[in-house]
Amino acid sequence: MKRIGMLTSGGDCQALNATMRGVVKGLYEFFDKVEIYGFLEGYKGLMYGNYKLLHADDFSGILTKGGTILGSSRQPFKLMTVPDENGLDKVKAMKDTYKKLKLDCLVVLGGNGSQKTANLLSEEGLNVIGLPKTIDNDLWGTDLTFGFQSAVDIATSAIDCIHTTAASHGRVFIVEIMGHKVGHITLHAGIAGGADVVLIPEIPYDIKKVVKALDARAKSGKRFSIIAVAEGAISKEVAKLSKKERKARMENYPYPSVAYEIADHIKATGGAEVRIAVPGHTQRGGSPCPFDRVLSSRFGAKAAELIKQEKFGELVVFLNNKVTSIPLSESAGKLKYVSPDDDIVKEAKTLGICFGD
Amino acid sequence: MKRIGMLTSGGDCQALNATMRGVVKGLYEFFDKVEIYGFLEGYKGLMYGNYKLLHADDFSGILTKGGTILGSSRQPFKLMTVPDENGLDKVKAMKDTYKKLKLDCLVVLGGNGSQKTANLLSEEGLNVIGLPKTIDNDLWGTDLTFGFQSAVDIATSAIDCIHTTAASHGRVFIVEIMGHKVGHITLHAGIAGGADVVLIPEIPYDIKKVVKALDARAKSGKRFSIIAVAEGAISKEVAKLSKKERKARMENYPYPSVAYEIADHIKATGGAEVRIAVPGHTQRGGSPCPFDRVLSSRFGAKAAELIKQEKFGELVVFLNNKVTSIPLSESAGKLKYVSPDDDIVKEAKTLGICFGD
Amino acid sequence: MKRIGMLTSGGDCQALNATMRGVVKGLYEFFDKVEIYGFLEGYKGLMYGNYKLLHADDFSGILTKGGTILGSSRQPFKLMTVPDENGLDKVKAMKDTYKKLKLDCLVVLGGNGSQKTANLLSEEGLNVIGLPKTIDNDLWGTDLTFGFQSAVDIATSAIDCIHTTAASHGRVFIVEIMGHKVGHITLHAGIAGGADVVLIPEIPYDIKKVVKALDARAKSGKRFSIIAVAEGAISKEVAKLSKKERKARMENYPYPSVAYEIADHIKATGGAEVRIAVPGHTQRGGSPCPFDRVLSSRFGAKAAELIKQEKFGELVVFLNNKVTSIPLSESAGKLKYVSPDDDIVKEAKTLGICFGD
Amino acid sequence: MKRIGMLTSGGDCQALNATMRGVVKGLYEFFDKVEIYGFLEGYKGLMYGNYKLLHADDFSGILTKGGTILGSSRQPFKLMTVPDENGLDKVKAMKDTYKKLKLDCLVVLGGNGSQKTANLLSEEGLNVIGLPKTIDNDLWGTDLTFGFQSAVDIATSAIDCIHTTAASHGRVFIVEIMGHKVGHITLHAGIAGGADVVLIPEIPYDIKKVVKALDARAKSGKRFSIIAVAEGAISKEVAKLSKKERKARMENYPYPSVAYEIADHIKATGGAEVRIAVPGHTQRGGSPCPFDRVLSSRFGAKAAELIKQEKFGELVVFLNNKVTSIPLSESAGKLKYVSPDDDIVKEAKTLGICFGD
Repeated sequence: MKRIGMLTSGGDCQALNATMRGVVKGLYEFFDKVEIYGFLEGYKGLMYGNYKLLHADDFSGILTKGGTILGSSRQPFKLMTVPDENGLDKVKAMKDTYKKLKLDCLVVLGGNGSQKTANLLSEEGLNVIGLPKTIDNDLWGTDLTFGFQSAVDIATSAIDCIHTTAASHGRVFIVEIMGHKVGHITLHAGIAGGADVVLIPEIPYDIKKVVKALDARAKSGKRFSIIAVAEGAISKEVAKLSKKERKARMENYPYPSVAYEIADHIKATGGAEVRIAVPGHTQRGGSPCPFDRVLSSRFGAKAAELIKQEKFGELVVFLNNKVTSIPLSESAGKLKYVSPDDDIVKEAKTLGICFGD
Repeated sequence: MKRIGMLTSGGDCQALNATMRGVVKGLYEFFDKVEIYGFLEGYKGLMYGNYKLLHADDFSGILTKGGTILGSSRQPFKLMTVPDENGLDKVKAMKDTYKKLKLDCLVVLGGNGSQKTANLLSEEGLNVIGLPKTIDNDLWGTDLTFGFQSAVDIATSAIDCIHTTAASHGRVFIVEIMGHKVGHITLHAGIAGGADVVLIPEIPYDIKKVVKALDARAKSGKRFSIIAVAEGAISKEVAKLSKKERKARMENYPYPSVAYEIADHIKATGGAEVRIAVPGHTQRGGSPCPFDRVLSSRFGAKAAELIKQEKFGELVVFLNNKVTSIPLSESAGKLKYVSPDDDIVKEAKTLGICFGD
Repeated sequence: MKRIGMLTSGGDCQALNATMRGVVKGLYEFFDKVEIYGFLEGYKGLMYGNYKLLHADDFSGILTKGGTILGSSRQPFKLMTVPDENGLDKVKAMKDTYKKLKLDCLVVLGGNGSQKTANLLSEEGLNVIGLPKTIDNDLWGTDLTFGFQSAVDIATSAIDCIHTTAASHGRVFIVEIMGHKVGHITLHAGIAGGADVVLIPEIPYDIKKVVKALDARAKSGKRFSIIAVAEGAISKEVAKLSKKERKARMENYPYPSVAYEIADHIKATGGAEVRIAVPGHTQRGGSPCPFDRVLSSRFGAKAAELIKQEKFGELVVFLNNKVTSIPLSESAGKLKYVSPDDDIVKEAKTLGICFGD
Repeated sequence: MKRIGMLTSGGDCQALNATMRGVVKGLYEFFDKVEIYGFLEGYKGLMYGNYKLLHADDFSGILTKGGTILGSSRQPFKLMTVPDENGLDKVKAMKDTYKKLKLDCLVVLGGNGSQKTANLLSEEGLNVIGLPKTIDNDLWGTDLTFGFQSAVDIATSAIDCIHTTAASHGRVFIVEIMGHKVGHITLHAGIAGGADVVLIPEIPYDIKKVVKALDARAKSGKRFSIIAVAEGAISKEVAKLSKKERKARMENYPYPSVAYEIADHIKATGGAEVRIAVPGHTQRGGSPCPFDRVLSSRFGAKAAELIKQEKFGELVVFLNNKVTSIPLSESAGKLKYVSPDDDIVKEAKTLGICFGD
């Protein structure tokens, strides 16, 4: 008999249910009796003992279902060690719930911040397995996270739609794609959608170079251009600001989002009028793509295997075309950024894509 | 031998190419020799004699291709009778091009404004056939326009994606859907996507009723709600303003778009925090859905038949499940609005959808 | 308080759940208390008293879910008046269940045969409302059935895929599309997919004319051709056979399905080698398309309204762009065929599509 | 000035055009003047000097277009050294064309057989770069080929559709998926689609174990099951046959394809009646998925870089999350099979999937 807790933490994505289904299918394969405690709304459920006892049937038919049957919430890591509004010690409360339910393991589906908390709980003595969830693909230590490819698919589909209308009207369009700190989705969707310019947080842009690229395209007879920009893209000027200066800047930020700023700057730099499309939260919704379903199912199976092996404190990862695991402590606190030196960036430049650098 | 001019006018949509292909296939079926003059960028091409002589091959493989191979532009009807910046008489110039090329007919793919111009040219003695293009489905005299269903599909897909993320996080989401003056897309996508609230220009909303509906849903245990709102949705207060007052209001409009206004009002009226998704121009892009491809192909065939019958001055329409035609003059200058008394509105209310009225 | 029975009968399709959700949403809107009895596996559930008491929650989230939460089965009308293997009088048994549960109405989602049984039960004194389900769109008395457009979408998507591979290799391909007796899906998917030849049961084909059309295309420089054929397409020779002769023919039919027969005949008549694709049952599966979701939701709302009005013995239909209803007796026993004289067939011919007639 | 020949060989797939676009974009980035010679219908074009001189514009807008603008044909490697029907020495003819056009490099998009020929031409002294095309993902030396994920997506979508109809009717369904020699597509689509049984050529099945798995599922209350089977799946009995015996067996094979054989065997072994779906050639058609578009674009960029570096005789590959290259000679003549010991097979078994072994 195994008693397993499970929770989904942070921003939701497309293959959370698929991953949980994988874990549970594996557990039922490995153990005669299994009790699954599903904590509601992420770590909150673990803190306040808010859970549902789940059965095999609850995981039936959810492989293709977006979102999470457990609900999710964002519980920033840095607040984990701060008591809640009633003075509750959150970490202790989570440990208490774990012990009260006599859990053999806690399975955490989450991104960077959530896995830091997972690591903390592991260091506090709980048996924890992490599963790398995030559309942003920015979890350190894994080549791929689940949710990423589904988000790329939706962002690409938005660019595809914009392509035909941009071409019909001979317009410049900016498609703003999710990614406040990292540009993986924008880079992949930009390549997949045939964007002419790709602007990401890791490679600050010079607006003059962007306008120059648009002009060169226009001169070569192309009546339209597509710019794929990550939410967190910044100019070279902004990149030079201190953290404090940047914060002050954002407090008085006059644009709904970065696409509007860039559109303004393009115009001010002598460029054409620019239209904007912001697919927004659609990028984390809908049914997971087959690629993510396979990845998630494999991740889930691996988590079950780690539980069987009693190999805890691990984060399941995809590395060098293999599903494996690394210590949670290795990944915790690090983000996987796009580097200007990454092969894929160089390849994108070979394709003629302008990064504005 | 037939010499046919063709142009695509106004905002582009998904089945323009499919429709042109239909016309041309029909022409080649009916006539031994056909010359197709494709005017570039809508009426501009006709005015300035900017065209391409097209062959059967140019229309091969474009059934599924979004946008328009001829390019498009918006040429407002009311400016048609105003000389251009060089003093050119636009109407005369269009007639001259028509005559110079010895055209037997001009085929115009366009929406409401474009068909008004088509009607004007018809009244001026040209042989004109109109084809009802618009994602908005607001052309008077036809049950359906091509582009509408494709736009509904994309808007619905956005709501579908938002659904899973709204459910995961227990949030209220507004999805802003195209339609400045009419709410057909929003109404259809709202029903198709299972929206709880649908706000459209034709049915001014009372924000208190919207908040009440959201509250009722929350009380019944539903952790999330979806509001589908048309770009041009207005409150009952705004509906009472004069045209001049409304214009002044929009000049100082402090929101990027209507969804942000409604989100603000919901919060101010004691409602929950609301997230926003704006699929925007994606709704007029991408490949036409099969429904639109059938409709467009049939429309195109009908246009060819009208040319064969030399029945000019007609707008091809879909009425009572049949492809037929009506005089351009009958449709020109009228918009097909959603009426609060329409069966589909009543049915939507029967489904529990709140219109805020 | 209303007690409503509901069942889904015959081959399943994509928007059964969407339709049931519509009915139930409407019932909860109209009545303070509602009890929904869902009979399992179609009329079998009604016969043998096999049902589930369903609540509002059971219909939550099923708008986009293919299949039917009640299960379905085929119970041919002609066997309804024949006792079952235990001598049970089926009609009496169904009436008994209805009475025992004190139902106010039975809602039947089904196609032609199922609505005949619905009509029979109506004539036997039960309150019955029919809802026009079938991918085939062959229900008499309605312009559209739910499921049809979703099936057309899948069949079209198959043709789209075949298109690129046929073009790459310069091949002739047959795509076999569902429809044993009627050709609506094939006709629509054929037009939407740009098929060159469309063969349907209602228009027997002359294989020589098909080969001639393929040859003409090859001569005009087109390296490939697509034939869309309905499962029940027949040659002019077969069309002349008596019912008995046809049955004998099918008993010794040497082909897996009609596409293989036609491929053989094309080769025997001097045509090219032909490849075959049979999307099969995929055409009735998957998520309903937005068009079907709107149609189904409206149908469901209408059914609820009819129950409120106590207007029973009706089949909900879509006629002349309106959701309305007709007496079940009017539709029962009649199929809506494609006619060679239908406008859409003529329009398809204008587009150059060969029907082999 | 660079003169580059390019051809697409073997069965077509979804991202051939995307890959060629990548190569050409890269060439235009690296070289001031480029001449692209596109050989028509694969090696045939090279043999018979049948080519088109292509320009940048020819590669515009083809990123999302399935098939190949060059056409393709299958030219088995073992026939390359056999003279054609007119006595032509094929290898010499290909070399002559290459020399006559003064090519700097020949770029070959092809699968296993085609790359063997590419290697042969390389050994004969031509500058050759190979690009790993095949939906089957069976090219030795690369973790991924382009076309594979698009094929998996389509096969998965077929299983998804079958899922809802199987569930509605409580049926066992076999979905037959492409793969005569290797099971990669079936394995991935099987996992992604939630198949209960996966049968592939590399793991011969015992029909009794398959039936037992179906029975176990039925007993656990599951009303339906899905079997994903590769075209080339074989039973343990057949696996024991000699090559000659197998050939004799196939010559008298009484089934349209393997799914029918398995359906028959399931019935004969006491199993349920089974329905069959065969998506067939649709799996190599349609628009490439975003994943394949990124992979292909990167592959193309790499090929251009290799040309710039004058590093010939290489096959571009994706290995350990990197786009790189290996000598053509290393890959030539070897197939990458699924191994029963592969992690993904073990993971699939952990998920409860039965392989019949």
